[in-house]
Amino acid sequence: MNRPLPALPCRAWARAYDRDTLAADTVAAAIVTILLIPQSLAYALLAGLPPQAGLYASVAPLLVYAVFGSSRVLAVGPVAVVSLMTAAAIGSLPPDLRADPQGAALVLAALSGAMLLAMGLLKLGLVANFLSHPVISGFITASGLLIAAGQLKGLLGIPLDGHTLPQLLASLAGQLGRVHGPTLAVGAATLAFLFGVRHGLAGLLQRLGLSAGSATLLARAAPVGAIGLATWASWHFGWAAGGMKVVGTVPQGLPPLGLPPGDPALWRALALPALLISVVGFVESVSVGQTLAARRRQRIEPDQELVALGGANLAAAFSGGLPVTGGFARSVVNADAGARTPAAGVFTAAGLLAASLWLTPALYHLPQAVLAATIVVAVLSLVDFGVLARTWRYSKADFAAVAATLLGTLLLGVEPGLVAGVGLSLALHLLRSSRPHIAEVGRVPGTEHFRNVQRHAVQTSERLLGLRVDESLYFANARSLEDRINDAVATRPALQHVVLQCSAVNAIDASALDSLEAIDQRLREAGLALHLSEVKGPVMDKLAGTPFLRALGGRVFLTHFQAVAALAPETLQARAGTPPAPTDAARAAAEPGVTR
Amino acid sequence: MNRPLPALPCRAWARAYDRDTLAADTVAAAIVTILLIPQSLAYALLAGLPPQAGLYASVAPLLVYAVFGSSRVLAVGPVAVVSLMTAAAIGSLPPDLRADPQGAALVLAALSGAMLLAMGLLKLGLVANFLSHPVISGFITASGLLIAAGQLKGLLGIPLDGHTLPQLLASLAGQLGRVHGPTLAVGAATLAFLFGVRHGLAGLLQRLGLSAGSATLLARAAPVGAIGLATWASWHFGWAAGGMKVVGTVPQGLPPLGLPPGDPALWRALALPALLISVVGFVESVSVGQTLAARRRQRIEPDQELVALGGANLAAAFSGGLPVTGGFARSVVNADAGARTPAAGVFTAAGLLAASLWLTPALYHLPQAVLAATIVVAVLSLVDFGVLARTWRYSKADFAAVAATLLGTLLLGVEPGLVAGVGLSLALHLLRSSRPHIAEVGRVPGTEHFRNVQRHAVQTSERLLGLRVDESLYFANARSLEDRINDAVATRPALQHVVLQCSAVNAIDASALDSLEAIDQRLREAGLALHLSEVKGPVMDKLAGTPFLRALGGRVFLTHFQAVAALAPETLQARAGTPPAPTDAARAAAEPGVTR
Repeated sequence: MNRPLPALPCRAWARAYDRDTLAADTVAAAIVTILLIPQSLAYALLAGLPPQAGLYASVAPLLVYAVFGSSRVLAVGPVAVVSLMTAAAIGSLPPDLRADPQGAALVLAALSGAMLLAMGLLKLGLVANFLSHPVISGFITASGLLIAAGQLKGLLGIPLDGHTLPQLLASLAGQLGRVHGPTLAVGAATLAFLFGVRHGLAGLLQRLGLSAGSATLLARAAPVGAIGLATWASWHFGWAAGGMKVVGTVPQGLPPLGLPPGDPALWRALALPALLISVVGFVESVSVGQTLAARRRQRIEPDQELVALGGANLAAAFSGGLPVTGGFARSVVNADAGARTPAAGVFTAAGLLAASLWLTPALYHLPQAVLAATIVVAVLSLVDFGVLARTWRYSKADFAAVAATLLGTLLLGVEPGLVAGVGLSLALHLLRSSRPHIAEVGRVPGTEHFRNVQRHAVQTSERLLGLRVDESLYFANARSLEDRINDAVATRPALQHVVLQCSAVNAIDASALDSLEAIDQRLREAGLALHLSEVKGPVMDKLAGTPFLRALGGRVFLTHFQAVAALAPETLQARAGTPPAPTDAARAAAEPGVTR
Repeated sequence: MNRPLPALPCRAWARAYDRDTLAADTVAAAIVTILLIPQSLAYALLAGLPPQAGLYASVAPLLVYAVFGSSRVLAVGPVAVVSLMTAAAIGSLPPDLRADPQGAALVLAALSGAMLLAMGLLKLGLVANFLSHPVISGFITASGLLIAAGQLKGLLGIPLDGHTLPQLLASLAGQLGRVHGPTLAVGAATLAFLFGVRHGLAGLLQRLGLSAGSATLLARAAPVGAIGLATWASWHFGWAAGGMKVVGTVPQGLPPLGLPPGDPALWRALALPALLISVVGFVESVSVGQTLAARRRQRIEPDQELVALGGANLAAAFSGGLPVTGGFARSVVNADAGARTPAAGVFTAAGLLAASLWLTPALYHLPQAVLAATIVVAVLSLVDFGVLARTWRYSKADFAAVAATLLGTLLLGVEPGLVAGVGLSLALHLLRSSRPHIAEVGRVPGTEHFRNVQRHAVQTSERLLGLRVDESLYFANARSLEDRINDAVATRPALQHVVLQCSAVNAIDASALDSLEAIDQRLREAGLALHLSEVKGPVMDKLAGTPFLRALGGRVFLTHFQAVAALAPETLQARAGTPPAPTDAARAAAEPGVTR
């Protein structure tokens, strides 16, 4: 993380660019372009914007990413979750500000771009770390459900309002009588076809003799075929005249260059949503990028990614787009289709530019129900309730974070859900580390090793208490240690020495240092001595100049064994105490691979 | 912390109560009563309340604490910092709600009492841990300065407004022409006398032949003498008639029993201030209680203290008082005067009850300037700018927390200052643990020990990378580890094995587990294997049932040495690499008492 930001990663691959690479990148770009045309339209509609915004957002941002991005195969553009967050952000604006959704989307992209760029230049990529995986999982699943529920609008041909599940369901209940039959039929047929393709086509094609790679690519292309077929049918049979909603007129032309609207109230109102969009988009993009880079033993530079995504969003803001990030499906297709360098992204941008110049009239008759079906199929693959069961088994705290984020997002909306999840996961983490595992340790007979007296048959002394604190000492847990030692002193009359084994103490902050001083002083006043053993280098560096160490009643020992040998040598002769009845934990501890 | 809450700690000492204890407690109570009469008046005035509220707050709360408290010598009542917070909370109410300050103080005491009681019954004493020592130090120093600045009102005989330093100074600047000369003279003389007493009297008395104990007690009693003398002079010379502000009529009688006002808007507005008062008061009280208990090798039970302080505040709320907590000065006097049990508190309450019944007419002529001087002397002992220098030397993060709290409290007020300090210290802690110390380790030649390659001359292998993570793995730092390993894999072509030495990993949350799975999978795809060594018992217990451990490409080794011996045995023959030039850190690490 400490290397200088490579300002132009493209120089590395541009130098070695040759004809083979060009051919590979061109093929990949052609395939991704075909995939991206309907996807861009659909995600723009999902964000509540005119369809062409999606095309525009897939041109300039790709060019910028190709220059600044550190991933070789990441494909940026509008993605489902970010489009949902964009819709929610615009929808929660006061009425006067949401009169111009496209302008608001440009402000969001500009704000998000500036924030990402700033985080990148300040090397603050670690901000994204505070979105824990449980929070992300809960959020993605809830977003997928919200998006799918919202698509009932297109699938049923009815108006639907709301940014939470209860709102959407209430709106749906009031509109059920107005379902448009032909729209439902086309939507349901497309859904059935797409699910069939997703779950069986590749296997079928392989059994028909195609190679696995070709079968997969063809299966991925099938939806585009369906879209083409539906558009032809809609035109041929005049579905639009029968009341079916179609994409309609998409203006032909270059992306419109221009500034986002300058209303300060709009910028202020969108600042928090833009921050959340930035962080969520960055996390999604980096996960995709890291996964794909690792397959080729390449790596991506998170801070450089921030710069590139920031630039991509600024480009979207100045060319009529919407917030963008690296998308999973398109990046995987890009990589699988053989893309070798970000030049593939440049060619994809050219393809989409051509589409927005010449292809848009052909999209007029594309039924919105078909686009809605492609979105539903795409987002339902994001829904993963299994994470609830997995986190429940592994850790109740993580489960609570998933559940809070999931329910918060579904019931309160994307922003409150995300904020609640992040807040809860931070609070639970602090709570856990504020109650550290403090083990009393004794000597494993015949060795220089010390282990938890509750898990092992070990030798101890009445005169010496050895405590191993399994946590860095800081303000939230310093008092726990005081309490533990106060307890021991009050209940063990023969006690003379307390030795803290610091092998797992990675840091001691000023509060904990005060606590150690207080412990030392109280022990001295009661006629006991406090000692330390196995203090780590970085911790000792900091303790070295402190009054605590100068005043310490006891000594600092290199190893816990040396401490016991010096302070309570009778322990080394003592027989091991009776071990406690073996518990599950103790049995697990006795298995190979488990220490302490 | 896991013992059941002893509902009535008083039963322990009441059973063994005898004539000796009675005598000791009575003497201590008499001395504390004399100290508390002026202090209670002064702190009530500081809170912006009529003086008798202070007396009432020193009766019922003491009785309740005597029954439920776990400290033998803690003396509860109004204290400086909590009274300042009470004044600030009432002062920041909207005008219609602050018309009745006494009613607002009762609501604060009731809310605070209920919160403390709830925290105690839920065993949430650890909430107080989130006030780090730097935050407390900065807050106490700033509070002392704010209180002292506010007392210029009494010392100069002018009206002063404001709850922040700029407000107080601006108010002072506008009033300097109206300073009341005689008030200033009396105030300055009292200040000089009290500072003299505090810094020299005990020594002087000892040189005159008194024992150290008696000299200290006499020095502590001297202020009461000064107050008596000033009251007599004020009455005798008719200072009140000359325009000097005196305490005036303090109603005679029992504390008024009754309910706090029921206005829901008032309760809502005071909820956050009450929470802050509860936490600050609890932390102050517990620190005092622990310090005094440790001297006698006793202990206090933090959760029981919450119950007792909660009860004390509820008692204050129903008997015309104000928020209370355990005070430092009075508890030390109580302990030094020989109090053995909380019965001394019962006798003190009786003394103050007697005072409020019969002594209040005698307080009519007590000049407010004298009370202001006693407050200034008391609170200036709280001011400690040294903490800035000490934390600066020890840790810049802790210094930032002190400075932010100090400046925030002085410039913005007690609540914003405290909230800013707590927020900053949490953020800095998370930031630190999100950038864990990850050391590459090699073998110390001829031993089974492994140390940081940057600090020691150790043996390593090109085929094996040993990493020791000096932090628990959780969501905020999981990505750091991924980055570190991605880096290594991309830059070391000969690498075959990555071994994580987990001796300092005290916990692995679900996010970190996901990261480990991702690392393992990426390494496997690149033809490498991930191994673990020295996993702790509690961590292994949790990992045991996970798909990560079942799928792990590598193995789990009991010790790091076993891992190296099995995976890269050539290391054990290799010569040590050239050690890096010794840095300060390396030299420190070479000193005795420092491991790793």
